[in-house]
Amino acid sequence: MKVEMRSAAKVGIFDSGVGGLTVLKEIRRLLPHESLIYLGDTARVPYGIRSPEVVIGYTREALKFFERARVELVVVACNTASAVALEELQKEYSVPLIGVIEPGAARVVQTTRSNRVGVIGTETTIRSGAYRSAIFRHNPRVEVWERACPLFVPLVEEGWARDPIAGTVARRYLGELKKGKIDTLLLGCTHYPLLKGVIRRVLSPSVRIIDSAREVAKEVAAILKRGEFLQKPSRSKPEIQFFVTDAPERFQKIGIYFLGHTIRHIQKISLV
Amino acid sequence: MKVEMRSAAKVGIFDSGVGGLTVLKEIRRLLPHESLIYLGDTARVPYGIRSPEVVIGYTREALKFFERARVELVVVACNTASAVALEELQKEYSVPLIGVIEPGAARVVQTTRSNRVGVIGTETTIRSGAYRSAIFRHNPRVEVWERACPLFVPLVEEGWARDPIAGTVARRYLGELKKGKIDTLLLGCTHYPLLKGVIRRVLSPSVRIIDSAREVAKEVAAILKRGEFLQKPSRSKPEIQFFVTDAPERFQKIGIYFLGHTIRHIQKISLV
Repeated sequence: MKVEMRSAAKVGIFDSGVGGLTVLKEIRRLLPHESLIYLGDTARVPYGIRSPEVVIGYTREALKFFERARVELVVVACNTASAVALEELQKEYSVPLIGVIEPGAARVVQTTRSNRVGVIGTETTIRSGAYRSAIFRHNPRVEVWERACPLFVPLVEEGWARDPIAGTVARRYLGELKKGKIDTLLLGCTHYPLLKGVIRRVLSPSVRIIDSAREVAKEVAAILKRGEFLQKPSRSKPEIQFFVTDAPERFQKIGIYFLGHTIRHIQKISLV
Repeated sequence: MKVEMRSAAKVGIFDSGVGGLTVLKEIRRLLPHESLIYLGDTARVPYGIRSPEVVIGYTREALKFFERARVELVVVACNTASAVALEELQKEYSVPLIGVIEPGAARVVQTTRSNRVGVIGTETTIRSGAYRSAIFRHNPRVEVWERACPLFVPLVEEGWARDPIAGTVARRYLGELKKGKIDTLLLGCTHYPLLKGVIRRVLSPSVRIIDSAREVAKEVAAILKRGEFLQKPSRSKPEIQFFVTDAPERFQKIGIYFLGHTIRHIQKISLV
């Protein structure tokens, strides 16, 4: 296996698959001069249906890759891995790990006026209660309605995010949350920002939608700024390297829905 | 890891996850006195989006498990693994491997009158062209319309197989096949038999639906009969053992959709 790692990127972005590209996109928007390394564990995606032990094991292997790549911090863009593996793995690694749960939860608590909020995500993320407890830590008076939406990821990956079928599925999933009269909804899965339009149409127009991808990007920008690590603008374009553990063609195809353009160079690696 | 293997079952059934239960159900119907071992690689499901190399590697690890269990034959119930790994792995293992492609393809060719048939399955199964070429070997005059239906598996696993949403999705996927004026449709994925009702309503009533699970069960029964291996009816109930590589609770929950009853004892093992 030939793996090139050309530049010493500061920021690593880890996801179980292609979904973390929403996080990459937001980081690139806020930090246009930073070189980034993205890793999608596409040989074992999706994490959202697996047990916490298995998700921890898979994430551990991914973090070894980022240690070898010598990044200065790793964004765990996968909500499931953030929910169940972050605390455990933070102790084992010298590289700081930034998950998506905490920034998303903090923002929800700042946003809600009625203290009635909704959280949607994968089965394991929702079952973990990670968002619920992070929100509780910030403000125990906030009531949380949660719902796993397992069909949202395959809908996005099928390219049907703007299809009427997505609307039908969203109405089904979000029906209960609407009954909770929430004023804020957190998108607790990297794929869900692509369904923002559909979700907005299903919910009352006054409901604010919080996107964990955007919040974690702000967090990363703040950390790099604090450390005065920020890359100065230079004439050479920052480099973004993409690694996957399987099926780069599929990653490339679905990646277009996330980035709006084709990712040219994707390297396949093995984590085991 | 404590793994009990109590009886020497003759037949092993391998699937990437829970879908192979359709095959188990058919085998149990035809061979009610046989003890069976089922293995679902739920830590790495779904195989249908992975590359052939990865599917071959995962299947190889599963077959080692069945060698240790000393079964007399292994049914590779997973269509994706049958499509891309069977030929390669058949050479490596002494235990005979029975895939789902060949029995399904043979039946389609026997059934069609107009020589216009449809095949539906996962992305990798359809891309592999395995059904198309198996059908061609039987009768090169048969025209094949193929369609990957990636949302069918998550719909079944969500418990929505009889939901109007399944009908909407089926109409979308099967629209092209209807244009082909097929008279026979092969369900090339273990989950799809649960959608038979929906699929039947979408297609013209004259279209015959062939289910690979049923065909492979007939094949297994024929092989055991030929070898006079068949178990005589006895007072002790035949044993069916279930093994998974992750999340037995999820397997149990979704297994009910397939078997109509709860699987009581599921053992978690590691293949790597």
